[in-house]
Amino acid sequence: METIKKHLKTETGWEVINEHYDKMQAITEGSNFMIGNGYLGYRGTFFEDRKDAYVGCIVTDSWDNADGKWEELATVHNALYGTFSFNKTPFSMDQNILDYSRTLDLLNGLTKRGVKVEINDTIFTLEEEKFASMSDKNVIAMKVQITTSKDAVITLESGIDTDIWSINGHHFQKETPFKYKNDLGTISKTNTYEDTIVVLEKNMVAFGKSVQKKSGVHKRQKTISLKANTPLVWTKFMIVTNSNDVLDPLKEAKTIYDSLISYDTVFTAHCQAWEDIWNKQDIQLEGNMVDQVGIRFNLYHACIATPTHKPLPIGARGLSCQAYQGAAFWDQEVFNLPMFLYTNPGVARQLLKYRYLTLEGAKEKAKKHQYEGAFYAWISGKTGKELCPDFFFKDVITNRDIRNHFNLWQIHISPDIAVSVNKYVEVTKDEDFLIKYGAEMVFEIARFLASRVDYKPRRDRYEIIRVQGPDEYHENVDNNAFTNYQTKITFDIALSYLNRLDKGSIRSIRDKIDLTDDEISLWEDIKDKIYLPTPNKDGVLEQFEGYFDLESIVPASKVTERLIDPEEYYGWPNGIAVFTQCIKQADTIQLLHMYPELFDEETVKANYDYYEPRTLHFSSLSPSVYATVAARMNYLEDGYRLFKKSLMIDLMNTNEAVSGGTFIGGMHTAANAAAWQMVVLGFAGFHYDQHHFSLKPHLPTSWKSLQFNLNLLQSDLRFLIDHHQIQITPLKMNNPISLFINGKEVIINHKDVTINY
Amino acid sequence: METIKKHLKTETGWEVINEHYDKMQAITEGSNFMIGNGYLGYRGTFFEDRKDAYVGCIVTDSWDNADGKWEELATVHNALYGTFSFNKTPFSMDQNILDYSRTLDLLNGLTKRGVKVEINDTIFTLEEEKFASMSDKNVIAMKVQITTSKDAVITLESGIDTDIWSINGHHFQKETPFKYKNDLGTISKTNTYEDTIVVLEKNMVAFGKSVQKKSGVHKRQKTISLKANTPLVWTKFMIVTNSNDVLDPLKEAKTIYDSLISYDTVFTAHCQAWEDIWNKQDIQLEGNMVDQVGIRFNLYHACIATPTHKPLPIGARGLSCQAYQGAAFWDQEVFNLPMFLYTNPGVARQLLKYRYLTLEGAKEKAKKHQYEGAFYAWISGKTGKELCPDFFFKDVITNRDIRNHFNLWQIHISPDIAVSVNKYVEVTKDEDFLIKYGAEMVFEIARFLASRVDYKPRRDRYEIIRVQGPDEYHENVDNNAFTNYQTKITFDIALSYLNRLDKGSIRSIRDKIDLTDDEISLWEDIKDKIYLPTPNKDGVLEQFEGYFDLESIVPASKVTERLIDPEEYYGWPNGIAVFTQCIKQADTIQLLHMYPELFDEETVKANYDYYEPRTLHFSSLSPSVYATVAARMNYLEDGYRLFKKSLMIDLMNTNEAVSGGTFIGGMHTAANAAAWQMVVLGFAGFHYDQHHFSLKPHLPTSWKSLQFNLNLLQSDLRFLIDHHQIQITPLKMNNPISLFINGKEVIINHKDVTINY
Repeated sequence: METIKKHLKTETGWEVINEHYDKMQAITEGSNFMIGNGYLGYRGTFFEDRKDAYVGCIVTDSWDNADGKWEELATVHNALYGTFSFNKTPFSMDQNILDYSRTLDLLNGLTKRGVKVEINDTIFTLEEEKFASMSDKNVIAMKVQITTSKDAVITLESGIDTDIWSINGHHFQKETPFKYKNDLGTISKTNTYEDTIVVLEKNMVAFGKSVQKKSGVHKRQKTISLKANTPLVWTKFMIVTNSNDVLDPLKEAKTIYDSLISYDTVFTAHCQAWEDIWNKQDIQLEGNMVDQVGIRFNLYHACIATPTHKPLPIGARGLSCQAYQGAAFWDQEVFNLPMFLYTNPGVARQLLKYRYLTLEGAKEKAKKHQYEGAFYAWISGKTGKELCPDFFFKDVITNRDIRNHFNLWQIHISPDIAVSVNKYVEVTKDEDFLIKYGAEMVFEIARFLASRVDYKPRRDRYEIIRVQGPDEYHENVDNNAFTNYQTKITFDIALSYLNRLDKGSIRSIRDKIDLTDDEISLWEDIKDKIYLPTPNKDGVLEQFEGYFDLESIVPASKVTERLIDPEEYYGWPNGIAVFTQCIKQADTIQLLHMYPELFDEETVKANYDYYEPRTLHFSSLSPSVYATVAARMNYLEDGYRLFKKSLMIDLMNTNEAVSGGTFIGGMHTAANAAAWQMVVLGFAGFHYDQHHFSLKPHLPTSWKSLQFNLNLLQSDLRFLIDHHQIQITPLKMNNPISLFINGKEVIINHKDVTINY
Repeated sequence: METIKKHLKTETGWEVINEHYDKMQAITEGSNFMIGNGYLGYRGTFFEDRKDAYVGCIVTDSWDNADGKWEELATVHNALYGTFSFNKTPFSMDQNILDYSRTLDLLNGLTKRGVKVEINDTIFTLEEEKFASMSDKNVIAMKVQITTSKDAVITLESGIDTDIWSINGHHFQKETPFKYKNDLGTISKTNTYEDTIVVLEKNMVAFGKSVQKKSGVHKRQKTISLKANTPLVWTKFMIVTNSNDVLDPLKEAKTIYDSLISYDTVFTAHCQAWEDIWNKQDIQLEGNMVDQVGIRFNLYHACIATPTHKPLPIGARGLSCQAYQGAAFWDQEVFNLPMFLYTNPGVARQLLKYRYLTLEGAKEKAKKHQYEGAFYAWISGKTGKELCPDFFFKDVITNRDIRNHFNLWQIHISPDIAVSVNKYVEVTKDEDFLIKYGAEMVFEIARFLASRVDYKPRRDRYEIIRVQGPDEYHENVDNNAFTNYQTKITFDIALSYLNRLDKGSIRSIRDKIDLTDDEISLWEDIKDKIYLPTPNKDGVLEQFEGYFDLESIVPASKVTERLIDPEEYYGWPNGIAVFTQCIKQADTIQLLHMYPELFDEETVKANYDYYEPRTLHFSSLSPSVYATVAARMNYLEDGYRLFKKSLMIDLMNTNEAVSGGTFIGGMHTAANAAAWQMVVLGFAGFHYDQHHFSLKPHLPTSWKSLQFNLNLLQSDLRFLIDHHQIQITPLKMNNPISLFINGKEVIINHKDVTINY
């Protein structure tokens, strides 16, 4: 057993084990030990837990707005609920615990609890395991096994808990309970959109027929005389269906119910699905088991957070809770997408198709603010309408609302999507996507940007005024380097598509969106004349105009001494960071991270050296970006330090669960996916610059070797990298791949290639 | 005696009398009862007062920055200081006062005190009077007359008090005292610019030779045995000279000293100068003596605040104290200038020439912020460099500085100047000014605006983004109607000058400022395509984009219930007015006030009805604008109510003396001058629309008649208006004047004209 940190351990690098029970860690552990399958997320709680323990089954595509402010995913009734009593003494975790462990089995997507308690001289052993089926999205399976050291009478209750945890109000109208073949279910409608959600239990143990409803639980009972050391096995399924997926969710739930034969058959199919995932996405590390399990823990969460059954957003907290409204931010394209793009491009396609399906929402948003084209929502749910309210933080000193402008000024979300579309198309050669969806999206984004830029006649250039860059502490800034470059690149891409696509396709897309020659001329002009900041004499790009004039505080953390209230927001309008160079997260470095080819290495270093000490890393998005850039330029100490910081955000629970009165706990999905970026784009130094693939590894000293697969140009390659050698194994080749390794081109075809570096 | 309000009375409409002594009113009365001549202001204090009573002699062109933040005019040493003792009992206002009055004699620019005290059974009578010579700018004269009811020994001290009141630090290096012909003087250098200021007393009574210095006073003594009922007269002059006016201020002070023969000779010349002023600027009102004295009180202060000896700014508090840095704001052109323009155009020329002389400062400011041309300072001292600091208000709750953007976003100051230049040129036909100064200023302002506007290619229009309009509670707004219209009109004017001026003049101005054809083409384009908001379906112009979406609170005063701290600022960044339609002052109405010809009467009414209830009138500039517009459209009740509010701002002391820790007391110079606007432009309905003069009177019911003079096209006319008739008397005609009265044209030549209306 290897210790990860404190009470967390691993045995093989495929599991996280905690042998220390701490009730206060319910929020954190509920997220970390959760299960999910991209359709539903079930928090890592225990069957007997209720809402005070933050039990939650969060279902995709269940958006509802209960409090008039926060549209969020619903937490549905909990059909895994149950209780035990042992000779009439109810079991709970408050009893005398002799032995305890919980395990997150990453390989098989399984969460387990083992507990041994002593009650009246009898030792009572309980094993619980659960998984959200990766092969049947609507099903969660649970197996509980109970053994006693002496004969005992066990009373088992099983039912559906309708009194559930929800952050911003109750999302269901009064439920309709029903019975199906002796098991219980509820039919509920959400308040806002009247989606019907059916929750149905299936017990593989026969319970009594009489149904009780008590404090929100519909339940049945069963009493068993249990012999000493003879296990009692209680298997239970929870089925969740949603009218957004099927016409008749009740019928669908019953059909699924009937199809469930046994725990083991469901489990076998589930494990096979996970095996397929790991075959594509796993990273194998030799030499450091803590890093190994940390990486897999993050990849696991990145996967279970990602809907794959239909085009839907990845929530910033995935399906670990309702925080951040189950909605997508720029994180989706910039942090989550790359892993899928290079390992499982079908998922990447789905995510981008989601953006295509929300184009109307983006166009409405643009129109509302007197722009044209597609202004993507800062917080995007199902329809792509803007879910980010105008007021969401509180000034904790005055208790007044603060008007932040994430929804209006953080415009880089649109070009972020455009450049991702293009990268997807280039790496996958998915021309079908380009013609059907991609070109139209990019054109509508270019159209938005053309209506958003300002032409300064006396400077003969276009500028982008009044924005908020990735660093959210500085709002209302001009010519944010990241935003301006992203915009320029978007126009490059849009214009390239006009030549790249066949005339018929272009004609039909242009007709569809009524794209005029005048607009295209304007795009040409903007492309040529948009202002792109250049490095100053020290090689540093200014984050935005006037940034260098702000007070420099190094290290940035010193600024916290100025807080009046520890809860106060650092940014707009008058937070402690506003008039300083202290930034929340990578901003200019985000640009260098995405486009190292645009700047020479000296410039990258100069910027890293300048900005890193000025960065507070108060966004979970920040450390991974710096780590990746640091690793690539062989700043191994910094790179590894920040890699660990990012890798352990959730495992070590380093971020706040509540900020300014708003729950922001749960999994940091972008940081989870960024683990892949740090390793592959950072330490392995893999990069695609729109023309060439390249590799330039710098491995941390404790790592012996690194192995991962990439899917490039529809071909599968395996990479095995140690401190001296790179071994590339073609797995399935559809196209020869050109790869630049430390600057030297290698063509991979059907043979293994080994290169010393 | 007619009561103005509370203890304030008038006898003839030419004086303000207060018979109630209240020590706590020192700040207010010191301003209200002050004397001045546009070169120096001497607060209405008593000769024995010291700095705790806010004694202050403020001198133009003495800018200094003692605290590193506020550049302000210096208060100079007080050479009118003196004390009395009566049989060894020192006289003070804390004694048993039998009788008291103070009078501001508006006709003669004189401030007086009469006091009768009883000290040990003797009645002691004191008469003090002072004036700042209107004919000799460097001189203040004081006459004190003492009578006792019994024989008494009087000890008189006379000297210079160097321990003076100053708001933001001490402005002088250690003074050098000197003696001239037995009188005392000091020579002092300011800290920042090392200007030398000489203060010299001249006593017309012989004092002892021995000079004492005690607690900051250089003084001499004299003891007199005074017979009962025999007046003792002490006449004293204070001479102030400044190295900014003369090469050798000491020599100049001595020359002036030698020229002063007697109080009466100086007083006679002074009264003659005031007679000349009143002949031009007086407004005579029959029927309401309170209004009459109120108007004259304001005109008096508007005059004494205005430097005429050389081109210098009118301070927002004139020379009544150091508040607002003795500097000019947009008030100067928009509030102060019209009275001079139409009654005493030489003064208007001087004020505009001041703006010409500060063109370099405005160009530097533009350059500093990456603009071209002339971006005039929001707070403009001698050089026109920006005196407005970035941070000046405090958040009183957190004690953090607030970054307001008056200096950067309140850009309308520049076009405000341009349109004033043009109005001056049109009304005076001063072609010399136009060629020497005016055209160049207007061109540089147009140049600034051309670099400031943004072209929105997809809307094919120019917009003005991120400004602060006259309503200072809403910063960071777009397309403020007032600013956009002022800008458009500035381009109209600039382009008209290119045709209007002779080719030689134009060539030489264009060569001087290197004005290219390209720039002129751009100006044409902006003139044609600048976005000008139009009234909505209810006829209301939106103050800025998005204003109508803000919370409507009517009446605006209700918003004050939301204050947490009574001292907190209402505006940026998170004050209580920011997200509401509550505005500090006239903004859109300012536009309708200046250009009623641009909108029909229905529109003016709709806007007035919409905006007035949403206006807090928390700027002293606000009520007069609404009053003028209301009067013009015959909203007599509102017009008269707001006229009184504006008229009485200083007399009734309705505004705060301190805000957010900053002293903002003193005379509200713009409101003082606006009294003239309310009467002549409002109730008499006089207007010049760049083409025609017009008159459309609506007199308040209590006014029998109204009489004033105007100087139009270099001719002098007298207007006498009652409720039915307008009588126009040509006084000095150089040009026939066309005048539209209620829409009908009348040509005034050499004969009186009487029109019924």
